[in-house]
Amino acid sequence: MSAASQARRRRPPDELEIIAFERGRTTSYSACGIPYWVGGAVAAADELIARTPEQHRANGIDVRLRTEVTAIDVLARSVTTTDLDTGRTGTESYDDLVYATGSVPMRPSAEGFDAPGVFGVQVLDDGAALLAELDRGDVRRVVVVGGGYIGLELAEACQVRGLEVTVVDRSTAPVGTFDPDIGAFIADAVRGLGIRVLLQQAVVRIETGAGGRAVAVHTEDGTRLPADVVILGLGVRPNVALAAAAGIVIGTSGGIAVDAQMRASAPGVWAAGDCVESRHRLSGQRVVVALGTHANKQGRVAGINIGGGYATFPGVIGTAVTKVCDLEVARTGLSSAEADEAGYRYVTTSVDSTTRAGYFPGAAPIRVKLIAEKRTGLLLGAQIAGRENSAKRIDVFATAIWNEMGVDELLELDLSYAPPFSPVWDPVLIAARKAFDAVEQDVRVDACPTEPQVGEAPRQPTM
Amino acid sequence: MSAASQARRRRPPDELEIIAFERGRTTSYSACGIPYWVGGAVAAADELIARTPEQHRANGIDVRLRTEVTAIDVLARSVTTTDLDTGRTGTESYDDLVYATGSVPMRPSAEGFDAPGVFGVQVLDDGAALLAELDRGDVRRVVVVGGGYIGLELAEACQVRGLEVTVVDRSTAPVGTFDPDIGAFIADAVRGLGIRVLLQQAVVRIETGAGGRAVAVHTEDGTRLPADVVILGLGVRPNVALAAAAGIVIGTSGGIAVDAQMRASAPGVWAAGDCVESRHRLSGQRVVVALGTHANKQGRVAGINIGGGYATFPGVIGTAVTKVCDLEVARTGLSSAEADEAGYRYVTTSVDSTTRAGYFPGAAPIRVKLIAEKRTGLLLGAQIAGRENSAKRIDVFATAIWNEMGVDELLELDLSYAPPFSPVWDPVLIAARKAFDAVEQDVRVDACPTEPQVGEAPRQPTM
Repeated sequence: MSAASQARRRRPPDELEIIAFERGRTTSYSACGIPYWVGGAVAAADELIARTPEQHRANGIDVRLRTEVTAIDVLARSVTTTDLDTGRTGTESYDDLVYATGSVPMRPSAEGFDAPGVFGVQVLDDGAALLAELDRGDVRRVVVVGGGYIGLELAEACQVRGLEVTVVDRSTAPVGTFDPDIGAFIADAVRGLGIRVLLQQAVVRIETGAGGRAVAVHTEDGTRLPADVVILGLGVRPNVALAAAAGIVIGTSGGIAVDAQMRASAPGVWAAGDCVESRHRLSGQRVVVALGTHANKQGRVAGINIGGGYATFPGVIGTAVTKVCDLEVARTGLSSAEADEAGYRYVTTSVDSTTRAGYFPGAAPIRVKLIAEKRTGLLLGAQIAGRENSAKRIDVFATAIWNEMGVDELLELDLSYAPPFSPVWDPVLIAARKAFDAVEQDVRVDACPTEPQVGEAPRQPTM
Repeated sequence: MSAASQARRRRPPDELEIIAFERGRTTSYSACGIPYWVGGAVAAADELIARTPEQHRANGIDVRLRTEVTAIDVLARSVTTTDLDTGRTGTESYDDLVYATGSVPMRPSAEGFDAPGVFGVQVLDDGAALLAELDRGDVRRVVVVGGGYIGLELAEACQVRGLEVTVVDRSTAPVGTFDPDIGAFIADAVRGLGIRVLLQQAVVRIETGAGGRAVAVHTEDGTRLPADVVILGLGVRPNVALAAAAGIVIGTSGGIAVDAQMRASAPGVWAAGDCVESRHRLSGQRVVVALGTHANKQGRVAGINIGGGYATFPGVIGTAVTKVCDLEVARTGLSSAEADEAGYRYVTTSVDSTTRAGYFPGAAPIRVKLIAEKRTGLLLGAQIAGRENSAKRIDVFATAIWNEMGVDELLELDLSYAPPFSPVWDPVLIAARKAFDAVEQDVRVDACPTEPQVGEAPRQPTM
């Protein structure tokens, strides 16, 4: 809808007819807000809707709800549609097609994962289905399979609702896009909520009972976790089936391959959102990052170009943020594992500081971990874990990485200071200073290899 | 003390003797924290002290308290000192001298400004003196002359203590380093606390009563403001008298002229902190910015160099933050007035957004004003006014200005997004987008001057 709106802004209805097919019942809603609706912080689904179908229609966009596109003919430049209520099919031709199907929750092919009672939460209707289930009244035990962002947010939402929640993840820490030491803070915070967290345990099957309904989750070590509801928190994958069937090129990352203007491989076909792959500006690799902010920007880029303007999507650097209870965590750039994979050699450093001047009421702990390239000191990645007012500092690192700053430059930045907002050295600068020292010491160690190694782990504070 | 500590880290006591002369009774305290001590948010002066004289002495730094340096002989490389308790004078020679005398509150030469009952608050002893006065019990009415950062922070502190407070400022809005429209938010917030704010009124004299004590403040329009205590909030000036008397070069800005390593004009003399001038990276001009964070960095740079290392201070871009009650305000780069003065032509744009997703509990209003160079779109300045979780976003703009980003690049940044932390388009990005549009439209207007002008003022929301 972002693409549609931008195209409409540039070309009036008598010049450009715009039709939007949507399988569901709503448009322009915040999928990221669904866990907060489930948890009750957001009272009604309406609040998640930025623009209704009626508003889009008033803007000259012909929104057709409950209408699924079932095939694309890229040569004939047409799509086949099915009205999900009447079953009636139709065909619509296009000059330009924007493919914006988003993503679908990962759902293993193992036994029971498609049983009733197993919920993947991606679109607003999924949220409504889960809520209806939780409201049934006889749901007591929830098992979340996978500790990704959405899995944890939904785990907290269920806990807030008074349910007994277990999260199972096969890694050593939840949210695998963080380094394990930062992930450990997340696991502690989740456990602090009273949620059971089982790590390094893969789920092998979901047991079904009466009516084929899910009743328990089984892990590889033989543990049986009874469950009234199972929620999938294994992440998402791009929803590209329709594009692939139409012969549109899918990238090696699994997302639709697009150029800088968001053009896919077929003539007149554009793609945007969770279903496309993006260039990672640091690794140079193509990656799929399912996030509303990229989707929105990409849609805007496609719409501007379709409307006769010119815009490009510049790629991503992997910035993300979430919170578990009052623990805030954020990351940008490459994690240690991603830096390894991208072929970088690096030093990592962590510092512990406070969000305000230490003496100021409300000063809260914050840990900042930096990953800097050996020798050059190029900032490769940053991760933050802390209490209130911690996480948004990640945006400074994101801006620094965007500009290819080294940690030597980073520590010189003129950042804001006043006691209610930071210590005299903001944690960002303290982290840069430590990383700079580590890069320098590492150079000396390389030159004279008998000296002790850098990078000892800092003490683990309580957050 | 930052310089002393850094030099000590690099050179042990048997190699480098370090003596620190301090007129007061304490070392390494947060001057910025004094208003919060006065207001009671910080319980005791001790909490503001990062390192005591004893701790410095244990580190091999010979701290001599209550000892004033009264003269510097740059040819003989020695200083003359007076013990303020015994009156005894002495002489100490040096190889390296660090001049770090800070700043002194602006105190007009007009009648009554040096009377008892008129308080400038700069050092910890000043805070103690003001507190003792307020604790006397018969203080009811406080007049703050000048609405600078410290003036407003002290006004709020006094208001919190239950006093009747008036702020008088001769400008159209308090805190002159902000554009007047942002300053208007500040004035509103101060008034919202129940503080009387008189703008566009210069103070012409302070009336004294029994014992020569200040009893009232008179403004140029004839208003008489009775006052039991008068607080100076007119800002500070570098404390350079001693350096000037010694023939050390003072820059046109009024601060001591230093090179990148913080060396002053005389051999072996270094200077750091509020008493020096810094290069403004955008305007290219020399400026005095009295702020703990710069002072700390500059001291560190001087100390590293004295210790045999190498460091430089890269200059400033004018980043600052403060809060009035729960209004947060921040700025970086150039204000409109400063951009004019520096010779830039520019467009300004303001956007209103929220600190979290609009539907998320606790979403608060935030206004972001940007100043971008005409034609190039170079980001020249940013100002923020908003409620909780607003102000620290200024650091993204500070990092962008440091990297000489244009607003076109700024709007592409991969900033963190999740509903508890920002709308899907962070206010930073919304602001960049609007500024980008304004720069583009301005180019078109220049090409075709009959079109309407850009830059209409946005509606003024309630904060």
